[in-house]
Amino acid sequence: MPKSCIYRTKTSSFSIAVSTVALVSLFALYSFLNPNFIYLTFQKCPSGAQSANMRLQDPPSPTFYDDSTLSYSFARPIKNWDGKRKEWLQHHPSYAAGVSNRVLLVTGSQPSPCKNPGGDHFLLRSFKNKVDYCRIHGCEVFYNQALLQRNMTSYWAKYPIIKAAMLAHPETEWIWWVDADAVFTDMDFKLPLERYEAHNLVVNGWPDMLFEKKSWVGLNAGVFLIRNCQWSMDLMDVWAGMGPQSPKYRYWGKVQKSIFKDKTFPESDDQTALAYLIVKKSRKWGDKIYLETEYSFHGYWLGIVGTLDELQEEQLAIEREVRILRRRHAEKVSEYYGAQRAQHVRRRAKSKIPFITHFTGCQPCSGEHNPGYKGDSCTEGMEKALKFGDNQVLRNFGFMHSDLLESSSIVSLPFDFPA
Amino acid sequence: MPKSCIYRTKTSSFSIAVSTVALVSLFALYSFLNPNFIYLTFQKCPSGAQSANMRLQDPPSPTFYDDSTLSYSFARPIKNWDGKRKEWLQHHPSYAAGVSNRVLLVTGSQPSPCKNPGGDHFLLRSFKNKVDYCRIHGCEVFYNQALLQRNMTSYWAKYPIIKAAMLAHPETEWIWWVDADAVFTDMDFKLPLERYEAHNLVVNGWPDMLFEKKSWVGLNAGVFLIRNCQWSMDLMDVWAGMGPQSPKYRYWGKVQKSIFKDKTFPESDDQTALAYLIVKKSRKWGDKIYLETEYSFHGYWLGIVGTLDELQEEQLAIEREVRILRRRHAEKVSEYYGAQRAQHVRRRAKSKIPFITHFTGCQPCSGEHNPGYKGDSCTEGMEKALKFGDNQVLRNFGFMHSDLLESSSIVSLPFDFPA
Repeated sequence: MPKSCIYRTKTSSFSIAVSTVALVSLFALYSFLNPNFIYLTFQKCPSGAQSANMRLQDPPSPTFYDDSTLSYSFARPIKNWDGKRKEWLQHHPSYAAGVSNRVLLVTGSQPSPCKNPGGDHFLLRSFKNKVDYCRIHGCEVFYNQALLQRNMTSYWAKYPIIKAAMLAHPETEWIWWVDADAVFTDMDFKLPLERYEAHNLVVNGWPDMLFEKKSWVGLNAGVFLIRNCQWSMDLMDVWAGMGPQSPKYRYWGKVQKSIFKDKTFPESDDQTALAYLIVKKSRKWGDKIYLETEYSFHGYWLGIVGTLDELQEEQLAIEREVRILRRRHAEKVSEYYGAQRAQHVRRRAKSKIPFITHFTGCQPCSGEHNPGYKGDSCTEGMEKALKFGDNQVLRNFGFMHSDLLESSSIVSLPFDFPA
Repeated sequence: MPKSCIYRTKTSSFSIAVSTVALVSLFALYSFLNPNFIYLTFQKCPSGAQSANMRLQDPPSPTFYDDSTLSYSFARPIKNWDGKRKEWLQHHPSYAAGVSNRVLLVTGSQPSPCKNPGGDHFLLRSFKNKVDYCRIHGCEVFYNQALLQRNMTSYWAKYPIIKAAMLAHPETEWIWWVDADAVFTDMDFKLPLERYEAHNLVVNGWPDMLFEKKSWVGLNAGVFLIRNCQWSMDLMDVWAGMGPQSPKYRYWGKVQKSIFKDKTFPESDDQTALAYLIVKKSRKWGDKIYLETEYSFHGYWLGIVGTLDELQEEQLAIEREVRILRRRHAEKVSEYYGAQRAQHVRRRAKSKIPFITHFTGCQPCSGEHNPGYKGDSCTEGMEKALKFGDNQVLRNFGFMHSDLLESSSIVSLPFDFPA
């Protein structure tokens, strides 16, 4: 149980037993009096963020919002955030319910048009892909295009946004930062939040690359989950304290290069900054950071895009064998079929569908991709990944792209496809 | 009560009285046994679409999804949709609850990049603007970029998407089509769904321009609410039956031009097609169509964008006078402050903030705007409208654009702004 995780309800097994008996009897009696009861009050309540009547009054009792010393600006640290957030939740019980599974996906891009001609078109589709994922799984999305702190540009720009999102969304337990160039390629996969109960930051990372090889690509800071709590506020202050707004920015660039020898550029960057905190300040921060290696929380595109056609064929082959996976259904019950698919795929598939495919180094907006990437490989890869993800969405609307590169290849699916 | 509106629960006032008394007593007793009860089961349930545990099993009992003759394709009409949808809801009681207020916003754009250099950047921001509105008000968004029926292009492309969305989302009562070039400029305004209880299609329209002047711009078909029911399926068959996939497409173009004399182009279009059904087939369709005139469900941009700076100043002036409107708050309780604002603004403001500003004729993606619009008026107008809307969002994150045209004008807001 993390000390900063303060919003879970503890109930003893005795009180659960008493409550259950009482609840069942009362429910039976009340159902008898009013057969509509089950529809009116006993609906399962949401895992997503829209868990309350949005017209609810905001009670007049003061909360942190009424504290004149509290600022959203990144320059002014927050203190006692856990207590402040807890108090707000106490005043808003409809949001306190279900808080631990609530996720706000935060992403964004620059305020002006991309220099690369196809850049904004890719960003539009990549944003659609994120909204699709969150519609299926009940998270919410905040896309930001405003630079909130002038000197925190590029990869440093996300921290002021995340802090502001935490303050604006006290009902959210997790902020999920996902870079604009990351694409969901497994629309069925659900974040295993229960696995992260004791942690406050979850990032794709490989301990041997970090601790032994001291590599700055031993983790990827383009996709991470960060808990909405004081620990995270403190971490971000230290983490982004190595950024361009700090007088010690150049110093930190040197420190990072001296430890992580494969880092090629002199400026301090947020990814190496996090690697530094994990490797060198592990005592202070390490126990609350979860390095996820079991699935592609961030999957490097270069190893993925060449396999997508084959992966799609393999999925269709499994569906031909397993009737339940071919059953048409409402988009809202997709998670149920996702769980079914995971079961069958585990047994039959040769390869695993990557959860997120991240186009690291492709720089779709500036167009200045890593010179090591040949010709159109980035553009083609993005096209394939987007259509691969979109096929899992469109399927529930009765259609699919029959070709992962050809936009006009939309086909209407026959009943019981692909039997 | 519309005959096609089948999902409302009727309860006599006697049964409400009995239920209330019973509920209050049982609640008191149970609360006593378990003080956590209010958190665990009595949360207000959502107005938005995420109203159920998304892992719920999809029951094996067959529904319309298991009917091999049912197709998502627009070419094959659906019969008895109300009965089919009702049956699905009976199998999914957690979605039956709250169904009447559930709205899915559907929008989209072409699969390929825009010809106009800034086109995709505008589409990206306009999509963000829609996602912002729906995050605040609890609707969901489906952005589609696939042409589902090859011969139904341009403004006709929306009907196959709407039909597929109805089938994929039986839990949704309303599909809200919003053109990609329409921008929310009043983030506080909430759709007055209760007003449309007896209707199945809601569109901005002016009876005198339609019935007397017989003008094809007597309504705007770029933004409309359509109920997820058989009536709508039938209407869309007839409506889109005047489209390019029909052998009578040219005939309908001629009929439209002969009645709506101000229509300048010969092809049959969906807006004039709807005007035709309202004016000439009013007996069959008229009583379920609501022509909304009370607010800018679609506001014509040309008359709006010049007033936005002044409107923003006026709002700030009202906030200076009314303390509650300056109170900082979580984004999730915005609807409460929106209602407060509406009350005060009604009394004080000279002008009304337009709900939606629609850039009709600007063609941001192709760039081929109406030659009547001078120079950069479209681009400037879109910039202002997007920033005007974004200011209402960013405010809850502690920031705003101090200038509606300048992207680098982000400022951090002091406590009690704008006092």
